[in-house]
Amino acid sequence: MISVSVIGGTGYTGCELVRLLTHHPQVVVKQIVSRTEAGKAVGEVFPELIKTELYYTESFDSSLKPDLVFFATPNGVAMKQAEALLDSGLRIIDLAADFRLSTDDWHQWYGETHACPKLLKQAVYGLPELYRAQIADAKLVANPGCYPTSVILGLKPFIESNMGDVSCLIADSKSGVTGAGRRANVGLLFGECSENFKAYKVSAHRHWPEIKTQLDKLAGCEVGLTFTPHLLPITRGIHSTLYFKTTAGQNKLQDCLEHAYAQEPFVKVLPLGSHPQTRQVAGTNDCLIAVHKPQHNDTAIVLSVIDNLGKGAAGQAIQNMNLMFGLDETLGLVD
Amino acid sequence: MISVSVIGGTGYTGCELVRLLTHHPQVVVKQIVSRTEAGKAVGEVFPELIKTELYYTESFDSSLKPDLVFFATPNGVAMKQAEALLDSGLRIIDLAADFRLSTDDWHQWYGETHACPKLLKQAVYGLPELYRAQIADAKLVANPGCYPTSVILGLKPFIESNMGDVSCLIADSKSGVTGAGRRANVGLLFGECSENFKAYKVSAHRHWPEIKTQLDKLAGCEVGLTFTPHLLPITRGIHSTLYFKTTAGQNKLQDCLEHAYAQEPFVKVLPLGSHPQTRQVAGTNDCLIAVHKPQHNDTAIVLSVIDNLGKGAAGQAIQNMNLMFGLDETLGLVD
Amino acid sequence: MISVSVIGGTGYTGCELVRLLTHHPQVVVKQIVSRTEAGKAVGEVFPELIKTELYYTESFDSSLKPDLVFFATPNGVAMKQAEALLDSGLRIIDLAADFRLSTDDWHQWYGETHACPKLLKQAVYGLPELYRAQIADAKLVANPGCYPTSVILGLKPFIESNMGDVSCLIADSKSGVTGAGRRANVGLLFGECSENFKAYKVSAHRHWPEIKTQLDKLAGCEVGLTFTPHLLPITRGIHSTLYFKTTAGQNKLQDCLEHAYAQEPFVKVLPLGSHPQTRQVAGTNDCLIAVHKPQHNDTAIVLSVIDNLGKGAAGQAIQNMNLMFGLDETLGLVD
Amino acid sequence: MISVSVIGGTGYTGCELVRLLTHHPQVVVKQIVSRTEAGKAVGEVFPELIKTELYYTESFDSSLKPDLVFFATPNGVAMKQAEALLDSGLRIIDLAADFRLSTDDWHQWYGETHACPKLLKQAVYGLPELYRAQIADAKLVANPGCYPTSVILGLKPFIESNMGDVSCLIADSKSGVTGAGRRANVGLLFGECSENFKAYKVSAHRHWPEIKTQLDKLAGCEVGLTFTPHLLPITRGIHSTLYFKTTAGQNKLQDCLEHAYAQEPFVKVLPLGSHPQTRQVAGTNDCLIAVHKPQHNDTAIVLSVIDNLGKGAAGQAIQNMNLMFGLDETLGLVD
Repeated sequence: MISVSVIGGTGYTGCELVRLLTHHPQVVVKQIVSRTEAGKAVGEVFPELIKTELYYTESFDSSLKPDLVFFATPNGVAMKQAEALLDSGLRIIDLAADFRLSTDDWHQWYGETHACPKLLKQAVYGLPELYRAQIADAKLVANPGCYPTSVILGLKPFIESNMGDVSCLIADSKSGVTGAGRRANVGLLFGECSENFKAYKVSAHRHWPEIKTQLDKLAGCEVGLTFTPHLLPITRGIHSTLYFKTTAGQNKLQDCLEHAYAQEPFVKVLPLGSHPQTRQVAGTNDCLIAVHKPQHNDTAIVLSVIDNLGKGAAGQAIQNMNLMFGLDETLGLVD
Repeated sequence: MISVSVIGGTGYTGCELVRLLTHHPQVVVKQIVSRTEAGKAVGEVFPELIKTELYYTESFDSSLKPDLVFFATPNGVAMKQAEALLDSGLRIIDLAADFRLSTDDWHQWYGETHACPKLLKQAVYGLPELYRAQIADAKLVANPGCYPTSVILGLKPFIESNMGDVSCLIADSKSGVTGAGRRANVGLLFGECSENFKAYKVSAHRHWPEIKTQLDKLAGCEVGLTFTPHLLPITRGIHSTLYFKTTAGQNKLQDCLEHAYAQEPFVKVLPLGSHPQTRQVAGTNDCLIAVHKPQHNDTAIVLSVIDNLGKGAAGQAIQNMNLMFGLDETLGLVD
Repeated sequence: MISVSVIGGTGYTGCELVRLLTHHPQVVVKQIVSRTEAGKAVGEVFPELIKTELYYTESFDSSLKPDLVFFATPNGVAMKQAEALLDSGLRIIDLAADFRLSTDDWHQWYGETHACPKLLKQAVYGLPELYRAQIADAKLVANPGCYPTSVILGLKPFIESNMGDVSCLIADSKSGVTGAGRRANVGLLFGECSENFKAYKVSAHRHWPEIKTQLDKLAGCEVGLTFTPHLLPITRGIHSTLYFKTTAGQNKLQDCLEHAYAQEPFVKVLPLGSHPQTRQVAGTNDCLIAVHKPQHNDTAIVLSVIDNLGKGAAGQAIQNMNLMFGLDETLGLVD
Repeated sequence: MISVSVIGGTGYTGCELVRLLTHHPQVVVKQIVSRTEAGKAVGEVFPELIKTELYYTESFDSSLKPDLVFFATPNGVAMKQAEALLDSGLRIIDLAADFRLSTDDWHQWYGETHACPKLLKQAVYGLPELYRAQIADAKLVANPGCYPTSVILGLKPFIESNMGDVSCLIADSKSGVTGAGRRANVGLLFGECSENFKAYKVSAHRHWPEIKTQLDKLAGCEVGLTFTPHLLPITRGIHSTLYFKTTAGQNKLQDCLEHAYAQEPFVKVLPLGSHPQTRQVAGTNDCLIAVHKPQHNDTAIVLSVIDNLGKGAAGQAIQNMNLMFGLDETLGLVD
């Protein structure tokens, strides 16, 4: 059994993480730390977790000696606490953005100096389809962002196979509102989001450097990336529609995709001509991908769908945990 | 006063058309023809129109001598009836696709031979921002599709000004479910659409040739167009996110847009960096457009938003009617 | 022309009020006061009002000499400012709850001493169907709550005609989320409300004493009232399902209803057996009512539907203004 | 292992039933019969079941010798086929209404003569909280309707304890749209249901006699029942708000409830003053119940919440199956 503590855990991501952890056959949850909800039952804050008998506690108790600590805190929290925890022998998975970027990118995109640059080098980007081996050995895993997961998984096979023009990659992504967190924000009210749709932060979204960093590595050069996030009036789900120029035909594109993910437990390549739906992945750790190449020109269209709280956050964190502790990668993630 | 008859009028488009016509200060509605709902009050079929005292009638009555006939029928109906009506001196606005394409494209995309090819040459494509003068004189107006309206208006200024690479235009469009019509179709049930999002008909949607036809004319050459429709869980609204390569900077793009639409009553260019929302245009004939040029590469992003039942269908039909009869173009369309 | 100022105006009620005022043919808006949004354009806060050229200002300017001041502020604001304004000769409509209850009820239900008890006697409860004459002469109008409007209008005819047992009245009411205001509250997030339904404040909701006060007056005795509010995942609309025991048959109940509202411009009695829908009244000042008396027992069921922002708040305020200034009661409220 | 066949299975109830069966540790699914979808993969019809490797087949194959047959067919199908199947030794759970009423009630409420009246006497009403022992021995189980399950469970303890006035019971019930089935019906389109709420069939809904039959039995006399169904713009969930007169105080009511369900695995009594939410039971077989007794009068309010596809249909069918075959009642129903 792995013993874990969760720091944070009152956001949507934290709620999903707790739900998955409490159903995981090899996990014991030692603690869920929340300053704001300390003393309350988890099921009081999240009625869906009514059966959970866990309570939020005020502060992290190292004497409980968990094997692993999850940070489900806002950006900027984990980077201040991680070093001490690692020094005491714990392993960490951070679901925020603290360890996903380089020092410079962090500074530029998050507007503050990184509190612990040396850990940035040590951290492994927790996308198992790219870094499975490194994750297994990692002390500190930077769990990827939701948009990046959907975009990177959709483009990876084609970039690695040199089948697309990486100078002009377009990611038109749409996310459900839980992707914006559980914040008391007027813009996220039902009265604002229902019966509405819009793009946001088109000129600069913090997931752009995260996606680009990983695509650059895959391409071995600087890619040209345009990323447009949109807000969907649904609770959960991300749909990324990806475009790139290619001379390859649709069968070749389909083969490339199927070959790349043949062994992956959570990435499912749909038959040619399919249209994955966000509802198909709600509550799961799956990523569904389909490719289209309309006959009339040289642009390929990739449709990539995940649950932003599943493969885009908590589900992926569980997958990373399984890898880190030598468990079957799918444990606790298939019903 | 203009006297009009409506053939069809039991779909969402027809409902919105009747709503606008009954509020128009210069219109008398002579007849609303529906075989399926004949005898029923309009307010019985559409509770929102409860105050309307109109009834559906079984068949078109030419003795009522309307000045104008609207077809709000399924594709393929108007092309069989239009010629006789025109011969009797009436003018026609068809809200379906019957007169929007060339004979060849119709045959290819709608799978049947066109019933009246000679009218295809006579018909004017009813997008006032492109063909205002021709519409004023037209006997037969082909009211544009909803997706085409949002895409063409968003790209027109840049194509006309040679500011973009027309060989690779991408239109990622999202539509509310009324865009699919008021059909008893399992795929359009609340239980299927709510909390869901997907692309559909990615390999071939009938609005692709319609958009391409118009963009080719604007460009004076064959453009490369990729068009991806998606189904949004909202009732009304289309959001098109448009991409093209350009060396122009954002200020120049903004100027181009503002200059192009300075005199247009219904196309509103938002300030640089804006994100139009579908809710802003719900129930209106407006098209809101914004342009972005993130600094990191050479791709421009245009956001174009309309109400699919307003500027995308019934509102635009009213605008065309106003033009055809020499009225103020905005009559009955601004509250 | 009536010149008006609005204090508050950044909530959903205020937004709807400003929308109606700017379309009213006999109104000039002098000022919209908001400390939090001072300096911003109204259209910046409410994209739907993008065409409005009004700006929020920091504080009330008495030198503008408006004829009427609307308070669209949180509960407890108007009662501190009203007296001075009235003394300077202005008239007031308060859309909050400050002047709807007796001193004792206010103290009990709002948990604080009322700041100006003497105005409570002077204020007229602004439900035109009950107090039309008094409203016309009023200096201070207490605009009714949304739930109370739907419940009182549904029960009034039967209580006045002694057709029901007033010792056991049940109001099962369901409201869209804008009824809870535009507050940055986690419980009102899309992620909480979508795909969800619940009752709330069943043991004690502040609209209970407001409804009871009015029903007591209508009945001439203390009624027994059970009121259960529920939160609907829709933006606008209230549906109250009302139950009372009666020996009257359905035709007699229907006659009673039709007779009571025959002359009312905004209360529409539907035919026997009808089911009004919230969407039918969205954006209007209408109240739709239907009555049922299933044959199997002695309970009547009344269905009463309004837009909580229309007849339930801003629309009713406009109706009251029209009455106070001798205008046609429907001016600016019918499209 | 129990081997089962499913007849029907293309509606929402059938989809949920198949989902639960394929996850049940003691079940082998032999066949899913659907004339309309024969030959298709289940995952093609229901994308959520994409991982299921089952296919729809044309007709029932008795040679597969299932232990149990589920009918998830429209009303009126099972009553024509059940006798032959029972004679061949199979056991049956019917999720439709065919065996829930008396011969007379069926005739009156479903407008046709019952095809097999003698089975009506043999059938056991499949509400385990009422008929657990009989279900265990039953050959033919009539799985209850969704509304009846929520209403009966909410009222049962109080009727059995003589704590309420059964002459005037009121059930104000609200259901998500999947409760209306997966039919190509205009009234169930997203474009009709979204942002809307209404009551329906207030004068006569077929679940009224079903509820009344069971409450009469519990009370030992004819009860007075008013039942008002409403359509909620959510996918899954029923919320019944129940009213009855009582002299008992809230603590006594709470005790009664807690005592009645202390041993029930799926009925959860919430603490005094709670408000259960439909989302808390989505995807589960739970029924959450809370009771309120506002101080101001003698009416008790019971809030009862289920998933209409779970405890209101497929989940309850699984619970019945477990009972019939001597398995742990919760097997396959707790995650």
